Amino acid sequence: MPEPLRIGLAGLGTVGLSVLKLLDRQSQALRGRTGRSIEVVAVCARDRHRPRGYDLSKLRWVDDPVDLAGAPDIDLFVELIGGGEGPARQAVERALGSGKSVVTANKALLAHHGLSLARLAEEQKVALAFEASVAGGIPVVKVLREGLAGNQIERVYGILNGTCNFILSRMETEQLPFEVCLAEAQRLGYAEADPSFDIDGFDTAHKLAILTSLAFGTAIDAAAVHVEGIQSITLADLAAAAELGYRIKLLGVAQRTASGIEQRVHPTMVARSSAIAQIMGVTNAVTIDADAVHELTLAGPGAGGSATASAVVADIADIARGIRTAPFGKPAASLDSSDRIPLQRHEGGYYIRLAVQDRPGAMAAIATRMAERQISLESIVQKPQTGARVRPVGVEVPVVLITHATTEALIRAALDAVVSDGYTSEKPQVIRIERE
Amino acid sequence: MPEPLRIGLAGLGTVGLSVLKLLDRQSQALRGRTGRSIEVVAVCARDRHRPRGYDLSKLRWVDDPVDLAGAPDIDLFVELIGGGEGPARQAVERALGSGKSVVTANKALLAHHGLSLARLAEEQKVALAFEASVAGGIPVVKVLREGLAGNQIERVYGILNGTCNFILSRMETEQLPFEVCLAEAQRLGYAEADPSFDIDGFDTAHKLAILTSLAFGTAIDAAAVHVEGIQSITLADLAAAAELGYRIKLLGVAQRTASGIEQRVHPTMVARSSAIAQIMGVTNAVTIDADAVHELTLAGPGAGGSATASAVVADIADIARGIRTAPFGKPAASLDSSDRIPLQRHEGGYYIRLAVQDRPGAMAAIATRMAERQISLESIVQKPQTGARVRPVGVEVPVVLITHATTEALIRAALDAVVSDGYTSEKPQVIRIERE
Repeated sequence: MPEPLRIGLAGLGTVGLSVLKLLDRQSQALRGRTGRSIEVVAVCARDRHRPRGYDLSKLRWVDDPVDLAGAPDIDLFVELIGGGEGPARQAVERALGSGKSVVTANKALLAHHGLSLARLAEEQKVALAFEASVAGGIPVVKVLREGLAGNQIERVYGILNGTCNFILSRMETEQLPFEVCLAEAQRLGYAEADPSFDIDGFDTAHKLAILTSLAFGTAIDAAAVHVEGIQSITLADLAAAAELGYRIKLLGVAQRTASGIEQRVHPTMVARSSAIAQIMGVTNAVTIDADAVHELTLAGPGAGGSATASAVVADIADIARGIRTAPFGKPAASLDSSDRIPLQRHEGGYYIRLAVQDRPGAMAAIATRMAERQISLESIVQKPQTGARVRPVGVEVPVVLITHATTEALIRAALDAVVSDGYTSEKPQVIRIERE
Repeated sequence: MPEPLRIGLAGLGTVGLSVLKLLDRQSQALRGRTGRSIEVVAVCARDRHRPRGYDLSKLRWVDDPVDLAGAPDIDLFVELIGGGEGPARQAVERALGSGKSVVTANKALLAHHGLSLARLAEEQKVALAFEASVAGGIPVVKVLREGLAGNQIERVYGILNGTCNFILSRMETEQLPFEVCLAEAQRLGYAEADPSFDIDGFDTAHKLAILTSLAFGTAIDAAAVHVEGIQSITLADLAAAAELGYRIKLLGVAQRTASGIEQRVHPTMVARSSAIAQIMGVTNAVTIDADAVHELTLAGPGAGGSATASAVVADIADIARGIRTAPFGKPAASLDSSDRIPLQRHEGGYYIRLAVQDRPGAMAAIATRMAERQISLESIVQKPQTGARVRPVGVEVPVVLITHATTEALIRAALDAVVSDGYTSEKPQVIRIERE
């Protein structure tokens, strides 16, 4: 039997502890599957003496993750510290630089430094594996990098943040406003005390940037992602969506277009009958459109210690088996440069909700502004939203428009004109529609 | 750049031609991803002169697949002939025996000879890859073998035959009987002229046997699978399922039980709200329950030239990249022996439809027969099935029972007693319920 694979693990939060427990529990099975013994030899975390419900006494304690990453008696560094800079970055660079493979769950680190880390890993001929960084337990990194290696990917989209999907699901099923559902998510531990990273869409954007690089062979570029969060979504939008056969999800979407690879994160109308619309609560899902396989959907737990540990340990098993591919599927030097496509060029259908002052000529003016820009309307709904617990303010009535495919630029210009006409009192709500 | 990977491909049906076209189309991308050029150097099929809409003139033609498999100028043999014996088997054995890797889509061959072929591949230190043999374009083989390597799998179940799912979907949505939907499937090319291999469940059983070996580390054993087809399913069953919150799917289920690994293929009641119940038409889906990841569902096209070619080419790309794992995830010699569990030991809920003669004491007798065997009932529905286009015969009324968890043995004993009592005129319909 070959030498054991010796691991140094940094970060003993929920995921780190779950990884230690899973490696213990599956020790024999993993030896059977990989042909090697997998041994954690040293660990590192901020506080040595915090009670963790796990016996660390047999493991060497190292105070500094960078020291652990460079320790001569480890083959593989598992980084579960988190954060795009600081100790996590330094430790990963140290590990790769000293010829050790790295497994990480750190989406921020990859989103910001994935390209340079991949270069370093390839130079050193070691693995840099990050299945756990996207969609928790769903093995979408492996599926894109290996399972669909024969495909040209056309689009990848998904529900990549359980917190947002939980909140939107609760708003819809319980008819409770955003703030109440956010507070509930915080109480249940699904949302942080400062929830902005999740609900503003940045967590989804980091994950999408990783998927984009894998799917399209482009250099990872988190700054190229257009990001909007879910805070503007109201019960009126959810009710209108339901009535029109849609559901609202925070999606990350990366898509091949004539201008290049578009990357965007925003609340999205999806057909209620689609696979992605069925995903409720904290579950994640990713759908991949590709030329050969057509459409593939993966759904499963997107977070949580145990599911994330499943992904970390799968990466460890690959390394133990000697499986090593370029981190982003092809050599970092051959990744195409990222496209930064202005959202103004986005093409698709739109949902628009307007608070229209109920006086003669309002609807005619709105319809004219749309027609002037060749925006054709699939449906118009104007009626009191009785079921939605929204009180009409003054004499305004909600009007919901669904457009056929058009561009963001035309929609924005038309709505600017509608607002200038003075028939609306609130900022128009605009939600992009994603077709299956 | 390393040497090109030289392929000999046998079988030029729909899948074979799709593989040739996909390799052509993605030639440059595959070189980028694998670091090697992938070249088909020779092909073989039954009829050299059949028009195929593909220019074979640059490829060497070999008449005998076994000769092609042993040709000294190929590194990898791609077997797309089909069939569990004969030329496919001989050619694969020849290729492996002469130290060449094999990629195959041949589920029958694997179901019957997978273990000995895996042994041979391991002895020769070559790859035996078969992603395309199960669920077409869905990379479930890779997900089980690598993506969930850190998990203990508890259950794998899925819709693995698009023909059956198409027929059941059409029966439900169009309210048309089995025979009519089967004829439609044949007209559309989804079912063979002799459809028995699909509709009797054997195709699903072969695929399930492969998944079972990968998921549970057992020696593949197609004979251990209990198999029932969909021919007995009536519109009355579909209507009753809908009313009770279920949908009927032909599932393959492999499950860890106290007695061992249970493998069964049969029409199954699944909760209408479950992910698997949403899968309609020819789409396939597989759900995996495992200790760390909990529940993961993969859905996509289960057949068709293009989707199957996606899987074949992914295997080819893995081999080009030098990725090689034991075919069934761990060495063939260490696979556990298969469990052949009598279905009588199966535990679960049951749907039972009886044609009950409408006279005093009938329901009491049935309830008593159940109670005698400690079978408790979740629901009883007795009413004319008006919506189901089924004419009541004579004075019989359909009675539908849903039981709580019990065993197959108790259900069969209770129903034997019910039939002996003489209150029923038809063979009872029994459909097992699968819980999420």
